[in-house]
Formats: sequence, C-alpha cells, structure tokens
Amino acid sequence: MTVTSPKGFRAAGVAAGLKSSGGLDVALVINDGPDTTAAGVFTSNKFKAAPVLWSQQVLRHGIVRAVVLNSGGANACTGPGGFQDTHHTAEHVAAKLTASGGTRAVVGAGDVAVCSTGLIGQRLPLDKLLTGVNAAVRGLARDGGAAAAEAIMTTDTRAKTTVAQGEGWSVGGMIKGAGMLAPGLATMLCVLTTDAVADPGTLDTALRAATARTLDRIDSDGCMSTNDTVLLLASGASGIQPTAEELFEQVHAALDDLGRQLIGDAEGATKEIRIEVRAAASEVDAVAVGRAVARSNLFKTAMFGNDPNWGRILSAAGTAQADFEADNVDVAVNDVWICKGGQAAEDRSKVDLAGRDVHVLIDLGAGDATATIWTNDLSHGYVHENSAYST
Amino acid sequence: MTVTSPKGFRAAGVAAGLKSSGGLDVALVINDGPDTTAAGVFTSNKFKAAPVLWSQQVLRHGIVRAVVLNSGGANACTGPGGFQDTHHTAEHVAAKLTASGGTRAVVGAGDVAVCSTGLIGQRLPLDKLLTGVNAAVRGLARDGGAAAAEAIMTTDTRAKTTVAQGEGWSVGGMIKGAGMLAPGLATMLCVLTTDAVADPGTLDTALRAATARTLDRIDSDGCMSTNDTVLLLASGASGIQPTAEELFEQVHAALDDLGRQLIGDAEGATKEIRIEVRAAASEVDAVAVGRAVARSNLFKTAMFGNDPNWGRILSAAGTAQADFEADNVDVAVNDVWICKGGQAAEDRSKVDLAGRDVHVLIDLGAGDATATIWTNDLSHGYVHENSAYST
Repeated sequence: MTVTSPKGFRAAGVAAGLKSSGGLDVALVINDGPDTTAAGVFTSNKFKAAPVLWSQQVLRHGIVRAVVLNSGGANACTGPGGFQDTHHTAEHVAAKLTASGGTRAVVGAGDVAVCSTGLIGQRLPLDKLLTGVNAAVRGLARDGGAAAAEAIMTTDTRAKTTVAQGEGWSVGGMIKGAGMLAPGLATMLCVLTTDAVADPGTLDTALRAATARTLDRIDSDGCMSTNDTVLLLASGASGIQPTAEELFEQVHAALDDLGRQLIGDAEGATKEIRIEVRAAASEVDAVAVGRAVARSNLFKTAMFGNDPNWGRILSAAGTAQADFEADNVDVAVNDVWICKGGQAAEDRSKVDLAGRDVHVLIDLGAGDATATIWTNDLSHGYVHENSAYST
Repeated sequence: MTVTSPKGFRAAGVAAGLKSSGGLDVALVINDGPDTTAAGVFTSNKFKAAPVLWSQQVLRHGIVRAVVLNSGGANACTGPGGFQDTHHTAEHVAAKLTASGGTRAVVGAGDVAVCSTGLIGQRLPLDKLLTGVNAAVRGLARDGGAAAAEAIMTTDTRAKTTVAQGEGWSVGGMIKGAGMLAPGLATMLCVLTTDAVADPGTLDTALRAATARTLDRIDSDGCMSTNDTVLLLASGASGIQPTAEELFEQVHAALDDLGRQLIGDAEGATKEIRIEVRAAASEVDAVAVGRAVARSNLFKTAMFGNDPNWGRILSAAGTAQADFEADNVDVAVNDVWICKGGQAAEDRSKVDLAGRDVHVLIDLGAGDATATIWTNDLSHGYVHENSAYST
C-alpha cells in the first residue's frame, strides 16, 4: 500500500527536527533497480522552489536513483542560497548512499531528486536536514514506505498512500497536500513507484496523461503552490513490461486514489464535492465550467451551509469560457434536478446535503463531452487554519 | 450627493414588500431632460438576468427616460416568464409616468431601463412590485436620491451615493453591492446621472473607460453576478457640454468613489486591501498579477489573520499570465519591503497590519506599467454571511 510495495524500492522516514512538533520530517525513497528510469511533472508557478528547479534538471536525464523529501520548510523564494542548499542536500544523499554500499553502483547528485514542503521564504536548517539524511540512509527498509509517507505531511491529518495492481507488477504511491490545492498541479508532493519495466518516455507519457485527468482536476482552494512535484520511478524488478495503456491505467488508478485522499483531507473541509459536467461541447469546456464552479467562494460557502443554491452554480458557470446556451442548462445536486433549462425545477428543499459527499451534475446541453472536478466547501475551519498559522 | 444632485432628475424609494424586512425595496429615477441620452455597461455572465437582457435592448437606442430598480429578487434564471415580468414592469412604469402628466412627453416602455437584485432563481411578486411602482411615481421628488439609494440595498450595511463636480455641471450616483464583487463588472447595480449635455456615444465612451479603471478593478470575492448594470443618464439641464475628457474625469471620479464604498462595505470584510502592481511590462500584466493576488484565498485569509505572508503573495502572482522574472520581484506591505529580488528582505514583524487599510505594493521589475486592484480579506464573517443566508 506504499511506495515500497512494488519490488526494488526501499524507503525511510525520520525526525530531523525541521518540524517544531518533533514529528517525522525527512523521507528518503531509493530505487534499487535493476532499472532506474523516471518521469516527473512540476508546478507551472513562476516562483518555482529551489528543489523544483533542481529536480527538473535531474529528470531531464530520465534517471532517478533516490528522492529525498522534507516537510518543515518549502525552500521556495530563498534565492541562490536556497538552491545551493538543495544542491548540497542531493550531494550529501548521493555520497551517503554510495558510502553505505547498499546500492548497486556509485550514486551521483544528478540522480537524486529533492522535494520540500512547508513555509515559503525561509532557508532550511541545513545541518539538521543533513543529519536527518544520515539517519534516513541508515534506516532504509523494504517496508519503509509508511514512515516516508508520514514524514512528508504538513497540515495533512493523515498519511496518504496507495497501490494499484497490474498483472505481476504494481504501482505504489504516497502524496501530501491539504491546502493550496489547485491545478497545474493540485499542490502536492507525490512519489509513485513501479516495478514495471518502462523507459523514461513511456513513463513520462503515462504520468502526464494520468495527472491531467486526476490531480489536475482537483481544485480545493484555487491556490497553486511553488513546490508541486509528482515523480514516477520504475525499478523494472518485476521483469514485466506492460503496454503503454496498461501502465497508464495503473498510474491513473494510483493517482485517482491519492487525489481522492487529498480532497478527503483538505483543510477545514466538511464536504467532498464532485462537480460533474456533461453534455459539453468539448472536454476543455467541461473542465472550464467545472473549475469555475469549484472556484466560486459563494458556491463553496453555500455548500458549507447545506444550501443547494443553484443560482450560485449557474452564475459561476456563466463566467467560464465555454460554448453553451444559458437556456439549455440543467443542474442536479445529489440527484435532485433543481434547475432545468436555466430556471427553477424541482423543489430545492428535496436536496439532502447532510452528508459529507456532494454530487453536482451540470448538463450543458451542448455536446457529448464530460469532465469531473473535485473540490471542497469553504468553511470556518479553512479560514481559521489559514489565518491563524503561516504556511 | 445623490442621483438627484444634478439638475433634471427626480427619484423615489418606497417599500413594496419585496424585502421581508419591510425596508425600502423599489427605486425609481427619472430624467426630466431636456435631453434623455444614456449609456450602459452590463455583466458579461452567460446567465444574464431578465432585467439585464431588457435594459441592454433599451440602451441600444441611447435613450433612457426612467430607471426602475428593485431589491428583494434578482429575476435571474427565471426563464421567459421572468422576462415578461420585466417587460410588464417597464410598461407599467411608462404608463404611470405618462398618466401622471409630470413628464414632458409620452413615455414608452422602450425608454425604461429595469434593474433587479436579490436571490437568483425566483420570480418576483409582480403585484407587489407594480403597486410599489405606483407609489414611487407618486413620490418622485427632486430630493429623492437618498431614498432611491436605500431602496436598492441588499446585504449592504449602508447606502452608497456620490457626486462629482464639473464646471457648472455635475455627476451624481448611487450603487449597491456587498458580495459577488468581481470584475466584468464588480457585481452591482449603479446609476449615474449628469446634467451635462452629451450624446449617447460620448456617454458610452466615458462610461466604458471609467468602469474599466474603477469598478472593473474591484475583486472582493471573485464571483461575477448575473445582474450587474451600470447606467449613465444625461439630462443636459446645465446647458453645458463638457469635452469628452472632462466628462470622463468626473464619471471616473464618481465611480472611483462609489467603488471605494463597495470595498468598504464588502460582506464580512475586516480589511480594505489596495494591491498596487508597478514596473509591469504592460498594464494588462499589472492587472493580471493584481487580480491573481486578489483572488488567492490563502492571501486573503492571511490578511484576515494580520499575517504579512509574502510567500502567499508571490505564489499567487506566479500563477498570472504576465511577463516578469521571479528573481526581480519586490514586495512591500504597508511600506515595509519584506521581499526583495524574490526572497526575504526586511523583517516581516515590522509590518503593522492592525488597521483596516492595507497597501500591498508589488514591483515586477519588468517595465513601467502600473495598475491597482482593490480587494478584501476572507474572514469568518464572509463565510458566515454566505453560508447562513441564500443570496
């Protein structure tokens, strides 16, 4: 159920004192091979954190032998000094792994991806981090995935892991993220592992296609992070080479599960809202309408108040760049068609919003394309958590 | 200080029972001329309320003799029946005005603009509205502007009026709006009057240019309404024809003042935030960056928490479609330069956020264009007001 479920991976999670809570805060995932192919997808924010800039360089070769991750600091907006910290961390991991003798070969810093998460704008305490790396190298284990997943948590209330099973091979994964969840990507650190045999190009295609339909369609609070990183590492240890389609399917399944877990643990949320847009003129239109609704604070506060306010759904949908006629739009909330043809239909008091799961179905009457966006409500808990603490 | 400050206008505000509170809810503004030229700007939402569709037709002729406005119901997403209600209301106003004999000429329904605000998706109680129109026609007065401004309030806590003085002529105005404040336009009903002499084309040019730099740069909660309407009516009663530039200046001054009043009265807000973007490559870029920050819930909750979290400002700015380098960006909050060159600079504890007014200055280091966006914080009050009541 973790990044160490597939064959060929070890991991560790240790407490290095980066988090004031004293919890686990440094994770290490290594690929023992035989293959060390990899792919990555990163934030499109102009302010990319130092570890993102570093890992983008690493991924250019399509080879990753180790990923070191820390919570307790994002190392974003930290200038050249912050980049040197990341570089130094990767070098330290490489040296320690090589010295430990437990890996097949000499590990270079250029084979080590780095991920960081936490407060923006502060340098990391490098001495603590490197001491943590030493402990993590010593603690690497075939069952270390759970500890690694715990070590990357910030405001997450629970560790988030997954596994998707192919025939004789599998995809394991871990993810963190609770706020700043929005596309391009949803804000997160995510590491997927697989023991399938796959070249970097195949991994890249599968990862991009799967993130585009999963993590990229989560929009909890519309805020895009400086540190988003999703990595996919392949060990080839199963000896099985799935087709590109088979690989996509399992990567998609793993990311879909992890994405649902993000929405389920979003800061202060009391609702998990599935916005399904159908009968759109194109998939792009469907996504645009779903996202416009997902980002409407008026819609989100109405959901928090258990108010099936379809007027706020329409007024948000009406701002999207999408091809449809206002008079053709139907809206159902939890299976009650409260709006038909752009006006009131069934009695809104029939809508039951008492539960945590909400399904908003928007039929644009403009074509046959479909897309689903996931979001949360906007609650007092969100305001409290994000006004009372710096993140 | 109201729509009846310029010569040539009368107005009234009456209680017709549309609001459950029993407060004033029907307003009437009439132009006694000698001119009756007019211009209008409307929401770009695909779901345009019936009164918006109606008034857009009226404004095509460039002539408006009367504006009837109601709170207590938006008449949006009400289908053909809702449009008939609007049509009927305009006809009733025209007939009553003609019968009253107080106007220079026969008034046709096509000269009557209609504005509505309130809950989306419900038909208006037409009998009450028309009875209210009768009372409003009877109550028309040269000093009726204050009552009219009060009658268009919804969740506004105070009436909002203005006057801008030209040389021998003036612009008066009223506005309502407290939630759903976002561009294209900021959500509102707004009526401006002037006793200047101006043809419809000149009025239209001045109104569009002025709204683009005032109301269109307010972004309180990112939500765009179905009913936004801004009207400018000219009576020519001063006998003075200002230049296009002079007209623009006073219309701009009136809208700037009304816009500030909107931000000052936004739902649940504890901060009025001026986001000034300078040294942008273009004005479009400056607006894009300012808007991205204004729409970040993480930035807005930080402001509510008196937290000068510049990392959230940068991460929001970094999502904008704008041409700048991350390493060149400086940020000051209330005159303290907490970020220089994309990284930490002065001690953030020096920033005083105790007051209601916040000035965020973002220097992109990319050119010489500037723009200012106004927004509010995201508070418990906003969540409460928008989750506890349908609007």
